[in-house]
Amino acid sequence: MITKTPKDSLTIMNELVLPNDTNMLHNLMGGRLLHWMDIAAAISAQKHCNSIAVTASVDNVSFKHSIKLGDVVTIEAKVTRAFNTSVEVRLDVWAQNVPSATIVKSNEAYYTFVALDQEGNKIEVPNLLPETDQEKEFFAGALRRRQLRLVLAGKMKADDATELKALFISDQSKA
Amino acid sequence: MITKTPKDSLTIMNELVLPNDTNMLHNLMGGRLLHWMDIAAAISAQKHCNSIAVTASVDNVSFKHSIKLGDVVTIEAKVTRAFNTSVEVRLDVWAQNVPSATIVKSNEAYYTFVALDQEGNKIEVPNLLPETDQEKEFFAGALRRRQLRLVLAGKMKADDATELKALFISDQSKA
Amino acid sequence: MITKTPKDSLTIMNELVLPNDTNMLHNLMGGRLLHWMDIAAAISAQKHCNSIAVTASVDNVSFKHSIKLGDVVTIEAKVTRAFNTSVEVRLDVWAQNVPSATIVKSNEAYYTFVALDQEGNKIEVPNLLPETDQEKEFFAGALRRRQLRLVLAGKMKADDATELKALFISDQSKA
Amino acid sequence: MITKTPKDSLTIMNELVLPNDTNMLHNLMGGRLLHWMDIAAAISAQKHCNSIAVTASVDNVSFKHSIKLGDVVTIEAKVTRAFNTSVEVRLDVWAQNVPSATIVKSNEAYYTFVALDQEGNKIEVPNLLPETDQEKEFFAGALRRRQLRLVLAGKMKADDATELKALFISDQSKA
Amino acid sequence: MITKTPKDSLTIMNELVLPNDTNMLHNLMGGRLLHWMDIAAAISAQKHCNSIAVTASVDNVSFKHSIKLGDVVTIEAKVTRAFNTSVEVRLDVWAQNVPSATIVKSNEAYYTFVALDQEGNKIEVPNLLPETDQEKEFFAGALRRRQLRLVLAGKMKADDATELKALFISDQSKA
Amino acid sequence: MITKTPKDSLTIMNELVLPNDTNMLHNLMGGRLLHWMDIAAAISAQKHCNSIAVTASVDNVSFKHSIKLGDVVTIEAKVTRAFNTSVEVRLDVWAQNVPSATIVKSNEAYYTFVALDQEGNKIEVPNLLPETDQEKEFFAGALRRRQLRLVLAGKMKADDATELKALFISDQSKA
Repeated sequence: MITKTPKDSLTIMNELVLPNDTNMLHNLMGGRLLHWMDIAAAISAQKHCNSIAVTASVDNVSFKHSIKLGDVVTIEAKVTRAFNTSVEVRLDVWAQNVPSATIVKSNEAYYTFVALDQEGNKIEVPNLLPETDQEKEFFAGALRRRQLRLVLAGKMKADDATELKALFISDQSKA
Repeated sequence: MITKTPKDSLTIMNELVLPNDTNMLHNLMGGRLLHWMDIAAAISAQKHCNSIAVTASVDNVSFKHSIKLGDVVTIEAKVTRAFNTSVEVRLDVWAQNVPSATIVKSNEAYYTFVALDQEGNKIEVPNLLPETDQEKEFFAGALRRRQLRLVLAGKMKADDATELKALFISDQSKA
Repeated sequence: MITKTPKDSLTIMNELVLPNDTNMLHNLMGGRLLHWMDIAAAISAQKHCNSIAVTASVDNVSFKHSIKLGDVVTIEAKVTRAFNTSVEVRLDVWAQNVPSATIVKSNEAYYTFVALDQEGNKIEVPNLLPETDQEKEFFAGALRRRQLRLVLAGKMKADDATELKALFISDQSKA
Repeated sequence: MITKTPKDSLTIMNELVLPNDTNMLHNLMGGRLLHWMDIAAAISAQKHCNSIAVTASVDNVSFKHSIKLGDVVTIEAKVTRAFNTSVEVRLDVWAQNVPSATIVKSNEAYYTFVALDQEGNKIEVPNLLPETDQEKEFFAGALRRRQLRLVLAGKMKADDATELKALFISDQSKA
Repeated sequence: MITKTPKDSLTIMNELVLPNDTNMLHNLMGGRLLHWMDIAAAISAQKHCNSIAVTASVDNVSFKHSIKLGDVVTIEAKVTRAFNTSVEVRLDVWAQNVPSATIVKSNEAYYTFVALDQEGNKIEVPNLLPETDQEKEFFAGALRRRQLRLVLAGKMKADDATELKALFISDQSKA
Repeated sequence: MITKTPKDSLTIMNELVLPNDTNMLHNLMGGRLLHWMDIAAAISAQKHCNSIAVTASVDNVSFKHSIKLGDVVTIEAKVTRAFNTSVEVRLDVWAQNVPSATIVKSNEAYYTFVALDQEGNKIEVPNLLPETDQEKEFFAGALRRRQLRLVLAGKMKADDATELKALFISDQSKA
C-alpha cells in the first residue's frame, strides 16, 4: 500500500462569477458554490485515490460574506485523512474583488469521498501521511468530524462518539 | 407581523438526471444535487419570506445511494422554523428509477436562508406556526440544529449549547 | 395490462428564472419555458409508462403574460389519456412574483409522448382511468385534440375528423 | 412605414447535438429542439422588426424522426407575414447524420412574436411583401393559422373563423 | 477519392448573446466566441469529411470590436483546403445590433481539423476544388498558413518555410 | 505607477471533463478548452491590472494530444509582459488521466487582454518585472509575438517587424 502526502492532492480552482451563478442581488448563489467545491474536492480525492471518487457527505458549511458578480472565487482542496475506502477533503474558499483587489475568506468545508473501481465497487485508498503542523491538526480533527457525521446520520450513538463527546464533557466539567 | 404555516412554503421540484450531471460511472454528482437542493430551498424560503432569501448555511448532508443517469430526482422543501431574519428549510430527496418504478429515499438536509430587501439589508421574516405532529417535531429540533451550526461556526461555546449538550449528557449519565 | 390514474403521473416542477433564461427585457424566453415544460411532461409520461418516453408533438401554446427574472415558475404535468403506444400530457404553468406574492396563470399546453423500450421500439402503455370530473373532461377532449394533430400533420383528412368537425358544424348550423 | 421581404429575415442556425441535449436513447430531446427553434425564430423576427421580439405563441409541432447524438441540426427561419405589432415566423428543421451524410427533414413549425420597445410596449412592425410563390403561399396561409390560434386560445368563436371553417365546410359538402 | 467544393461545407450559425456569455461590461467574452467558432468549424469540417473531425489548431485571432449583450452573432465557416488527413476551415464572424440594424465584421479566423474514424484513427479526406476567385485565394494562402503553424509549433525550421519566408525576403530585398 | 511580478498574476484552474465538453469520441472539444483558457487568462490579466480585462487576441494554438472524458485539465496562467494598456498572458495546459495517474502536456498559448475601466475606456496597466530566467525569456519573446500579431492583423508591414524578421534573415544567411 503506497502512502501519499496532502500536497499530492492539492487542487486549486479559480472561477469567475458569471450572471447565471447569481441571484437578484447579483450575489453568487450558495448552491453554485457548493457545486464548484464538490468538483474541486472530487479532483483532489481522485488525485489521492487514483480512481473515481464519489461524494459521500458534506459537512456543515456557513457562508460568511456575499460574493459578487465578477468576483474571482479561489478554491483550495487537499485530502486531510484517508480511511479504509474513503477520504476526507478540506476546502478553503476565498473571493477576490477585482477593482479593489481585496480578498476575503468566504468559508471552509469538509467533503468526504468514497473510492470506486470501474464497476462501482469500493476499493482501498492509499494512506495519507500529514507533514506540516497544520496538516497534522487537520488529520487529528478528522476523527472527531467523522464521529459527528456518523452521529448525525444515525449510524453511531452519541455515547460512543468518544472524540466528539470530549468536547462537551470537558466543557461541562469546567462549568 | 403575519404568520404562515409550513405548507405555505411547500416546494416540489422534479429534475431529470442528464449526462452533464453525472460522473464516469453515470452517477449523479453530489455537487449537482446540492445545487438543485439549494434552488428548491431558496424558492421555499422566498415563498415564506416574500423577499429575496440567500443561503446562509447547509447542514451535514450524507448521500446514501447512488442516483443514476435518467433517474428522476424529486426534492420537497418546506420551512421548519422562522427566526428573526432567517428561516430553516428541510429538504427530502428521492430518486425514482423509471423502468423499475422503484423510488428510494436519497437524503434529508437542512439549509438556512437570510431574508434581504432590494438593497441587501436583512429584514424580519413572518412567523411560522407548525401544524402537523411532524412539523412540530421539525420546529422543535431546529433549535438544536441551530446550536450545532453556531458551535461548528465558532460563534457559540459548546458549553452554552444547552439543547445540544443534553444529547451527550443524558447519554453519559446512562453510561 | 395494468391501469393507472392521472394522479399517478402528477409531476410538479418549480424553476427559478435565472439571467440566462431571459431576453434583453429580463423576460423569460418562450423557448426556455417550452424546454422546461418538455422535461416536466417527459417525467410525467415516464411515470405513467414506466419506460423511456420521447416527445412526439406539442400543441399550440400561447404565452399570455411575461414572466420576469427572479420569478418562480411552477409547472404541473399529468397524463390525460393513454392511446396504444402514446400518451397525452396536460401542463399548467404559473409564475409567482416573490416580493409581491402574486401568482398568475401563464399558460396551458398539451404534449404527446411515445413510449419506447431500451432498443427504441414502440411499446404498449398502461391504460388511464380518469377519476375527477376535470380529468374526465380532459380525457374526452383528448380525442378531439388528437384529430386536430393528425389533420395539421397531414395524416387525416379534415372530413374524417368527426370529433373536430362537430365544432364547426354545430357552429355552422347555429349560424 | 418601411416594407421588407422574407429573405431580409432569413436566419440559418446549425447546432451540434451534444450529450446534454439527449435522452437515455441518445436522441435529441424535443424541448431542447423547441428551445433552439425559439432562438432562431426570435433572431429572424428581430431582423424584421429591428426591435426586441418576444414569443407570443407556438403552433402545433410534430417530431417525425429521432435526431441522434452527434447529428447536425439545421434550422431555417423566415418571417411569413407581418400583422400590426406581431409577425409569424416559419421554421424548417433538418437533421444531418455525419458519417452517412444523409439529411432528413425533421419538422416545420410556426412561431409568432410580438415587437416591443425598450420599455416593453408593443410597437408597429414593418410590412412584409412576399416575393416567391412559396412565400406568397405561406403569407396567405398565415391568416388561417392565425384564426386557428385565436380559436384554440378561446379568443375567437369557431363560427367567426371563416378562413378556417372553409376547410371543414368544403369537405362536408363533398361528403 | 471524391472531390468536393467549398460551398459543400458552407455552415452558417447564428447565436444570440445571452447574459452568461458576457463580462461585467456586458460584452461577449472572447472564449465564448472561440467556442462557438469551433463548433461552426467542426460542423463545416465534418460536412466535408463525412467523419468525425477534431480540432488540431487555431490560428491567431484578433477581436476588433466589442460585441454586446443581445447582439446577434453570425458565423460563416467554409473549408478552404484539404490536406491528407486534415482540412483548414475559414471563419468569418459578424455582429448585428438589433435596434440599430448595424452589422459589423468582428473577425476572421482559420481552424484546422483532423478527420478520424470511429476508433479515433486518422483517415483520408476528400479533395477540395476551389471555384470562385476568393476560394482560390484562400486555397493558395492555406500553404503559407500551414507553414506558419508548423514553424510556430516547432515542427518546421523557419528556413524551410519557403512560402512563408518569401514574405520577409521580398520585403527585405525591397528594403 | 506600481510594478508587479508574474507570480502576482499566477492563476491555476482545474476542470473535470464532463460529457457535454466532449465529442462523439469522448474527447474534449477544442473550443471548450479555448473557452476555459480564456477564463483562466482573463482572471490572470485582471489580477495584474486590477480592472476588467477583455480578450484582444489569441495566438496560434495547437492541440497535441486528445484529452478524454473524466480527465482533469490543469491550466496555469501568468502575465508575461505589460504594454501600455494591454498585457500578454501565457497559458500552460496539462491533462491528467485519473486511473493511470499520467499527466501529459496538452499545449501552451498566449492570449492578450486590454484593460478597461467601468465605462469601457482603455486604461494604463501596472508594469511587469520578470524575476526568474524563464519569466525573462517569456518577457523578451513577447515583443516578437506582438509583431507577429500586428503583421497577421495587417497593422504592421512584414518589413517593419524587425524582431520577427530576424528569425528568417538569420536562417537565410545560414543557408
